[in-house]
Order: sequence, then C-alpha cells, then structure tokens
Amino acid sequence: MRIGELSRETGVAVPTIKYYVREGLLPQGRLTSPNQASYDEVHVGRLRLIRGLMDVGGLSVSAVREVLAAVDSPEPVHKKLGAAQHAITRVPGGEPEGVAEARDTVGALLRRRGWRVAPDHPSAEAMAVALAAIRGLGHGAFDEVLDSYADACERIAEADMAFAGHTTEVDRLTESVVVGTVLGDVVLTAMRRLAHVEASAHAYGDGTR
Amino acid sequence: MRIGELSRETGVAVPTIKYYVREGLLPQGRLTSPNQASYDEVHVGRLRLIRGLMDVGGLSVSAVREVLAAVDSPEPVHKKLGAAQHAITRVPGGEPEGVAEARDTVGALLRRRGWRVAPDHPSAEAMAVALAAIRGLGHGAFDEVLDSYADACERIAEADMAFAGHTTEVDRLTESVVVGTVLGDVVLTAMRRLAHVEASAHAYGDGTR
Repeated sequence: MRIGELSRETGVAVPTIKYYVREGLLPQGRLTSPNQASYDEVHVGRLRLIRGLMDVGGLSVSAVREVLAAVDSPEPVHKKLGAAQHAITRVPGGEPEGVAEARDTVGALLRRRGWRVAPDHPSAEAMAVALAAIRGLGHGAFDEVLDSYADACERIAEADMAFAGHTTEVDRLTESVVVGTVLGDVVLTAMRRLAHVEASAHAYGDGTR
Repeated sequence: MRIGELSRETGVAVPTIKYYVREGLLPQGRLTSPNQASYDEVHVGRLRLIRGLMDVGGLSVSAVREVLAAVDSPEPVHKKLGAAQHAITRVPGGEPEGVAEARDTVGALLRRRGWRVAPDHPSAEAMAVALAAIRGLGHGAFDEVLDSYADACERIAEADMAFAGHTTEVDRLTESVVVGTVLGDVVLTAMRRLAHVEASAHAYGDGTR
C-alpha cells in the first residue's frame, strides 16, 4: 500500500509516519519508484505498536526506539527482555536525601524474596528514589507495605508470565511482554485506584464522616 | 525564615519558589515589610511535597495544584480522597477502537469484584483505554490476567489502608494517601518489573535459550 493508505489504515498522519521513519522507529517502505514506497501489514502493526506505547503508555520517542531495537535484536530471550525492560523503565530524576539507606532497604527486600536481580537494575534504583522521597516527606510507615506489595507482585508476575506464554514466536513474545508491561502498568495503577475507592468507601463511609 | 533560607533548606531555587507562589501551589509568606516575606516549616513541608510529586511522581504543575486543593479542602474524608484521586489520575489520550467493549469489560469486572465505583471514574476509563489498546495490538489474551491483578490490588489496597491508618489527623491523612498513591505507583511498577526479572530468569534461564 502507499503511504496515504497506511495513514488511513492506522489513523497516523503522513508527516508523522515520515518522522517515525527518519527517527528509525519504522522501517522504510520498499521503493517502487524513486519517489514512491510501498508499505505492508508489518508497517501497520509496527505503527499501531508505536502509537499504543506513546499515546496510552506515555513512552517518549527515544524510549520507543530503544524498545523496538530490543524487540528486533537477535539476542536470546532473557537478554531481549532485559533490554526492553531497561528501555521502558523511567528512573525518577534527582537524588533525594536518604537514597543510600533506601538502596539498602531495596537490597534487603530482594534478598528476602530471593529475587535474582542485579542490585543496580534501574527498577531497583527507581524504587530506592521513591522510597527515600516518601520517607523524606515523613511517611516512613510506608515501609510496612513493602512485603504486601511484593506478595502481590509475585502473583502479578505469575499471571504476566502465563499471558506471555500464550505467545510462542520469539519476536512476538518480546512485543507481548513490552505491551503487557507498559500498557499493563496503566491497567494496574488504574485498578489499584479502583480498589482504593472501594476500600475508602468501606473504611470512611461515602461522605458522612 | 527568609526566602533565601527556605531555598537552602529545601534545595528549590528562589525563582522556582516564587513561581509556585504565583501559581497558587505554595501559600504566600507573611509580609514583614513591603518587600520581604517570612516563611516557616509549613512552607518547607509543602515545598518538599510539591517536589516529590513532580520530580519522583511525574505529576504536572496543574495536577499538583489540584491535589493540594483537595488536601486543603474542608470536605469530608471520602470526598477529599476522591478529589485527590481524580487529580492524580492520568487518562490516556485518544479513543482507541474497541473502547466501548473494553468499558463493558471494566464494568463487568467492577460488578464481579463488588467494588463500589462509579463506572465513569477516570481510572475505570484509563483502564478501558489501555485494555482496548492491548486488544487492538493483538494481545487480547491479557484479559485473562485481570482477575489476578484484581486479587493483587485488593491485597495492596488493604496494605495501603493500614498505611494510611497510621495517620490520625485528617489533613495529614489526605496527604499521606496522595503520597502513598503517587509515589506508591512508582514503587509498585518498579517492584513488578523486579518480580518479572526473577520470573523470566526462572522461565527462560539467563541467556542460554
């Protein structure tokens, strides 16, 4: 199909498609004449993936580029997944006071749970920064929820792995994990808030306290 | 204290402090002369809260303004919490194909779990948009994780309520819930990724498949 048809099919404007090709997010079409390229279903799927990760998942162009490089790389699965995970993990900026102690808390949690994770994993660092900030705001009691969160995350990871297991083709597996992680974050944080509404209605009533 | 001391105490630059005052995020200092204002510990705490929500939680200036309005409002607790929650919930842009069906899925989930949540709650909408996007990318098997996520979220919400229960003063309670939700999201999504690393190492080995 020509670029105009690709645009109609996906709802992405032609200049945006050209921008993604220039930025290396989308492979070039096959040249059918010096000024015309032809696109296929691979481009349609890739464009939808890009827009889902950006519009719904909130990823930046550079994060999407890194994710797609991981999806396309010839590495073994565990390495591809690791690279994709690094690309989609935002480590909060700044170095709040008390982050060194918070890193120790995270390290102790990882040992306690028996999770085989390098202590310098960006998500471990993101967690340490968030914990240090929470403590710095005087809400250190939050530490007491960590093992409940870890229990919940083990259950979630088990469900996530079963979801990923639906996919047998390796490239598609990495894509499926990326989608399940980035868009799954949106589902999970939304669902946590909905569970909060119920818990708050239960604990405080609905407007009478 | 003067504004320079407030800046040193919190690490926030003087022009930024002035900007927050103009934007209504931070109350004005008490005027001690026509050109000089005095700040106190309330300002220190509020500034740290603003920076934590923005730098670590990724909230925008306008979201922070809404959150603080909810924290400061004289409404009953459940209403304050609801207003704060609306302020911190980002509904993804766009209206992906299939969002109407996804809204039905979310509604059915809420009924199945017995969660007393208005079906037009922004988090229900955020979840529907994310689900529709996941399905549109051909990963509809994700639907099968929803009840595992809901089980996990009930456990998390229970822990979160116990955390909030540490706080007895009402204004502080709302602040504590906001911090636990916004920065807790960062902790939770980071922890989910760490649990994934362990699950992936377990399922796929560490580089040999």
